[in-house]
Amino acid sequence: MNREILLNLKKPVNFAEAGLELQNLTLLEKEIYYGVLTIIDQNNEFSSDLLKDTDVLVGTVVGFPHGTTTTEVKVFETKQAVTDGATEIDMVINIGHLKSGMNAEVQADIKAVVDASGGHTVKVILENAYLTDEEKVTACKLSEAAGAHYVKTSTGYAPTGASIADIKLMKASVSPHIKIKSAGGVRTLDSLMEYLDAGISRSGATTTAVMIDEFIERFGRE
Amino acid sequence: MNREILLNLKKPVNFAEAGLELQNLTLLEKEIYYGVLTIIDQNNEFSSDLLKDTDVLVGTVVGFPHGTTTTEVKVFETKQAVTDGATEIDMVINIGHLKSGMNAEVQADIKAVVDASGGHTVKVILENAYLTDEEKVTACKLSEAAGAHYVKTSTGYAPTGASIADIKLMKASVSPHIKIKSAGGVRTLDSLMEYLDAGISRSGATTTAVMIDEFIERFGRE
Repeated sequence: MNREILLNLKKPVNFAEAGLELQNLTLLEKEIYYGVLTIIDQNNEFSSDLLKDTDVLVGTVVGFPHGTTTTEVKVFETKQAVTDGATEIDMVINIGHLKSGMNAEVQADIKAVVDASGGHTVKVILENAYLTDEEKVTACKLSEAAGAHYVKTSTGYAPTGASIADIKLMKASVSPHIKIKSAGGVRTLDSLMEYLDAGISRSGATTTAVMIDEFIERFGRE
Repeated sequence: MNREILLNLKKPVNFAEAGLELQNLTLLEKEIYYGVLTIIDQNNEFSSDLLKDTDVLVGTVVGFPHGTTTTEVKVFETKQAVTDGATEIDMVINIGHLKSGMNAEVQADIKAVVDASGGHTVKVILENAYLTDEEKVTACKLSEAAGAHYVKTSTGYAPTGASIADIKLMKASVSPHIKIKSAGGVRTLDSLMEYLDAGISRSGATTTAVMIDEFIERFGRE
């Protein structure tokens, strides 16, 4: 039961105290379960250093948010991010290639990032807002074939974010060991629990602290 | 008188006929005066090949749209874009560094892209929507000091785009040989002419064809 993950949650670092307030334009989301701070700003060396005395990990984005950079650029970004201390990579799929039926190119693009990540977790953002259901299924299968660890619904920058229907569709399109991450629109604890029941293992949100506070208030710390 | 530029305009290629329709998700804007197609999709080799029999040039974006990628990534993107046939580079300034007063870093970031561009035109997108007037002036001065050819108002992805007040402020903040480009919100011929009078030399728009048709209808081809 996915909700049990919540029992092991960690309260994230106070970002203002950690000096991140000035960087708020570049702050993407705080992942709730494992305490991963995913940062658009690719100055991962700075972020890693800032967070070194906390139990918050640094994740970053690659080819974000449009997915249109070349594979070579995505690989370069990934290698530098890992070198600078990022431990998780959220990459955006090449949407144009996917919609053009260039499946081999889409898979090779993802595989190149997986190979460059040195074994770190790679999540593939499909940006469902722009995809048909058939394209979502194809994207899931290509992501799994390329060795990615997660498929993720959205960047948070498209007209729509995660939906329960999409979580179920994605869950049905990958093997059980491939995990699902929601992003974009999961802003309340009730909504988060609904998405957990639908099959997500992670959710990215800017309202993490609020959700954690509400969880503790309702269910207690233990 | 900037409006005279319009008399030398070229009708852009028919993008659908050129096979770009399928790529519409990645099409950013068509620049009106010099027939530059600025494309988010960084597959510039594909674009250059597609447009080789037209008089439309290929431009591309770097660090787009958030400006948060590292300088090393921006340099890598720029070099690959130029190698693949792009002749103009629209880069996004590091907004977080600018807002944090890290002026030396902001200037070095731009200069690195200018150096990597091999003498091609570099435009620095300030993304005015997020800046104070003082920050806009600073960004203009740093762009000029770094050797950029243009300062540009917006990416088109922020809450607001170009304003007449900003064009005037930017014009007053740079030497006469540094040009101004508007983007985001200049969608009609009347609006375009107002911006030309305020001092822009270029404008990026998705409605270029409509504006050109209207111009020809009103003023004739010659």
